[in-house]
Amino acid sequence: MKLATLRTANGGTTAALATGADSYLTLAATDVGALLAQPEWRIVVTEAAASKEQEVIAASEAVLAPLLPRAGKVICCGLNYGDHIQEMGRDLPEYPTLFAKYADTLVGANDAVEVHGSDRVDWEAELAVVVGSELYRADEDQARAAIAGYTVANDVSMRDWQSRTLQWFQGKAWDGSTPVGPVMVTADEAGEHFEVRGYVNGELVQQGNTSTLVFGPAQLLSYISQFTALRPGDLVLTGTPGGVGMGMTPPRFLKDGDVLTTEIDGIGRLENQFRIHASIPANA
Amino acid sequence: MKLATLRTANGGTTAALATGADSYLTLAATDVGALLAQPEWRIVVTEAAASKEQEVIAASEAVLAPLLPRAGKVICCGLNYGDHIQEMGRDLPEYPTLFAKYADTLVGANDAVEVHGSDRVDWEAELAVVVGSELYRADEDQARAAIAGYTVANDVSMRDWQSRTLQWFQGKAWDGSTPVGPVMVTADEAGEHFEVRGYVNGELVQQGNTSTLVFGPAQLLSYISQFTALRPGDLVLTGTPGGVGMGMTPPRFLKDGDVLTTEIDGIGRLENQFRIHASIPANA
Repeated sequence: MKLATLRTANGGTTAALATGADSYLTLAATDVGALLAQPEWRIVVTEAAASKEQEVIAASEAVLAPLLPRAGKVICCGLNYGDHIQEMGRDLPEYPTLFAKYADTLVGANDAVEVHGSDRVDWEAELAVVVGSELYRADEDQARAAIAGYTVANDVSMRDWQSRTLQWFQGKAWDGSTPVGPVMVTADEAGEHFEVRGYVNGELVQQGNTSTLVFGPAQLLSYISQFTALRPGDLVLTGTPGGVGMGMTPPRFLKDGDVLTTEIDGIGRLENQFRIHASIPANA
Repeated sequence: MKLATLRTANGGTTAALATGADSYLTLAATDVGALLAQPEWRIVVTEAAASKEQEVIAASEAVLAPLLPRAGKVICCGLNYGDHIQEMGRDLPEYPTLFAKYADTLVGANDAVEVHGSDRVDWEAELAVVVGSELYRADEDQARAAIAGYTVANDVSMRDWQSRTLQWFQGKAWDGSTPVGPVMVTADEAGEHFEVRGYVNGELVQQGNTSTLVFGPAQLLSYISQFTALRPGDLVLTGTPGGVGMGMTPPRFLKDGDVLTTEIDGIGRLENQFRIHASIPANA
């Protein structure tokens, strides 16, 4: 099944089941994270699908919210595509490079992204893993069984801020800068490997297959869970393939008005227009 | 005033007002973060102090929980004590080095800290700033006005994991490893500068004064708020002075049974015994 979080007319959100390409069925949870926090969430969805009482929303009318607007943890892995690492002449890493951000960074699949105060806004198309049940000190089999599903994310990075210090956080954790969605495909319906692509104004700039990940989804979740618990609705971003703007000659960054598209076959597509402003407005 | 979060008999927590050295008055909030989320929290505390209906708990009976068990953001600054940076022969940084962790890392002022799977457990005594009202793109004056108060923290770090990759997160974000408390002293009652000390088994190992911080509390909050919102109950750790175990010759780390004491004059003292186990138990 494919699950989404939609904006509602009253300013809130609702979890929803995508029913074919053209409509959603609303579910009794504020978002996909709240749905997954119910241990019997698969039954909740199945019963809603069988019921005639749930609201149906045409896809053309639906407004996608961030898939997991209240994710407790959003943990990202860097330097994880083996083919890209090897083409750069580096050794494969022994441990995953991990960093954290917060749910405030997330935006919906078609939201505009407003950036104030960076002129090096770069893209990182990524497969993201949605945690479905609590994991702590889990082995890889336990971690694999705890994957609720997969979604698409773009770990948009402000390279000027990211390179100010050794720690990447301040270039990565900008509120409203990380598109995620449009849906979570449940693990049972997803393939084993995913083709990840990123486009700027329709031009293909990134492409990679998750079969070349140094640390796959279950391995990442297991590793993280050795030191911190993962819970339903937490999100783990698996890293980006080659083709980021910073690596181009000369480097290339998003310009005001550019459209960033992030797409994974079998999951869906994010399409976000960027509004890039040179300075940060004062908070009056 | 001095505010704490106490464990309750039913397994929950409650916010409390420290009334002198020997007792606490319980407040109508589950923890200090929940209290600060009420815009009129000062009135809530004042009215509780005037009431005869609140429960009084003797300090000898009180069990301190993590001050902010559900902090939305716990953001840490590294490399921030100017005298230590200069004694190492380095230039003062132009920007703060920031990294993130989650509330799961926090433990109470006298809790035992259990570490499984690291043999390089190091200390970082720090002043921590508690956010009292929402901040986004705030200048330093706005940031200063939004400081609810100050507390003591120890950014305990697993140096073996921290040095596995360039990003520090996996050495810093261990669940139940960051003591915080015992109280938050409100900004109006706190001095401008703080003397921070760390001890291992009673031996002084760290000492510094926050007057030598490169980026002071208001500056840090303002800087962070340029890219991510800070909210009531969020916590910002301001960095640690010289004297960490990693910097000693030979390096020194906590051993099983060691007691780590972290103390700031005018706020209070954390005293945490460490239980250090070589391996990570399987999650059966």
